[in-house]
Amino acid sequence: MASKGETVVLLDFWVSPFGQRLRIALAEKGVEYEYKEQDLTNKSDLLLKSNPIYKKIPVLIHEAKPISESLIILQYIDEVWPDKTPLLPSQPYARANAHFWADFIDKKLFESGTRLWKLKGEEQEKAKKEFIEALKLLEGELGDKEFFGGETFGYVDVALVPFFAWFHAYETCGKFSIEEECPKIVAWGKRCMERETVSKTLSDPEKVYQFVLYLKKRFGVE
Amino acid sequence: MASKGETVVLLDFWVSPFGQRLRIALAEKGVEYEYKEQDLTNKSDLLLKSNPIYKKIPVLIHEAKPISESLIILQYIDEVWPDKTPLLPSQPYARANAHFWADFIDKKLFESGTRLWKLKGEEQEKAKKEFIEALKLLEGELGDKEFFGGETFGYVDVALVPFFAWFHAYETCGKFSIEEECPKIVAWGKRCMERETVSKTLSDPEKVYQFVLYLKKRFGVE
Repeated sequence: MASKGETVVLLDFWVSPFGQRLRIALAEKGVEYEYKEQDLTNKSDLLLKSNPIYKKIPVLIHEAKPISESLIILQYIDEVWPDKTPLLPSQPYARANAHFWADFIDKKLFESGTRLWKLKGEEQEKAKKEFIEALKLLEGELGDKEFFGGETFGYVDVALVPFFAWFHAYETCGKFSIEEECPKIVAWGKRCMERETVSKTLSDPEKVYQFVLYLKKRFGVE
Repeated sequence: MASKGETVVLLDFWVSPFGQRLRIALAEKGVEYEYKEQDLTNKSDLLLKSNPIYKKIPVLIHEAKPISESLIILQYIDEVWPDKTPLLPSQPYARANAHFWADFIDKKLFESGTRLWKLKGEEQEKAKKEFIEALKLLEGELGDKEFFGGETFGYVDVALVPFFAWFHAYETCGKFSIEEECPKIVAWGKRCMERETVSKTLSDPEKVYQFVLYLKKRFGVE
């Protein structure tokens, strides 16, 4: 737990899967923090000052020092509060493997998922195919393990699980069933939801879908 | 140094800035390894088997276990051989900062640099502007320090310095002078070149430029 007088502030936006990673990790670690919801259509001076390079959430401000990029923050959280729920494995090879899959989620799953709701026609079909392919590769990495971290909930689990709340939006936009394509991933998501740190953090899938509809309108997709 | 019987293999391609990072890091650590130059127009079974997800170099194979993605490998090398030339700082905040800037190099500098030689006209001008902007941000982070790692050559230095060998190609394609735009970065690059691990690893800038001309032809840019 953050010791008395230690200041931890999270600049975030409710539906962000990247921000949700950090909320889950901080909850797992038992770290108390101040949550500051950001208006992304009118960025605050605090956000612009804290992340001048990308001007994006999430930003963790620990003892007045800001850190950006969710996977980098996740590793930082794990290093600063190592005692409760260690997220990264202790062996270098297993650590590298966890970093690889978390990075894969950002590079392939999030990226194809965004094209899946943003595009139409053939381009959307291509995105859907790539999204399912990425999810199947993750399913292969999960194998018969309970969590990506093995018997314990770990770094890759935290990195991936916020997308579980987005599955409904992806499925509805792409007209397909993730459970049919990747049943083990859906079973894994349900297991993660048994943890209070996850179930209390993840957005309601219907609200995520409504938010995606709002984005589609804003980007002129429909 | 890799102990007797320990097998370390690097699948790489001579001009790759990502591969050069690892060659510099392994040289700094004094790790002996087998270098296996890859034919990227006809990928080897070993490469396809070692990196089935991205099918890209560099791949480090340590004790028969492959690792991909250069920054992830760089962190692995630093963890497995920590004694000589520690690359990442020991404090979590400084570590997060090093990860942030190394990631920035991949996301912004490499990306805009590639558009700089691949595109023409207005799109090339836009890429050039973004490339210079990224380099100026890196210059700001360097400040008056000798290296990004402070007084010692570290993780961000290793991540960035292979691009120093590409500067001549970027400048010639974009018709501008990096030294005029970012004199401190050029001075830093020259300081890095005083290290044998760097000077013996980096490609000859003229050969890099000839390689870029070959790529331009292959991609039908000229």
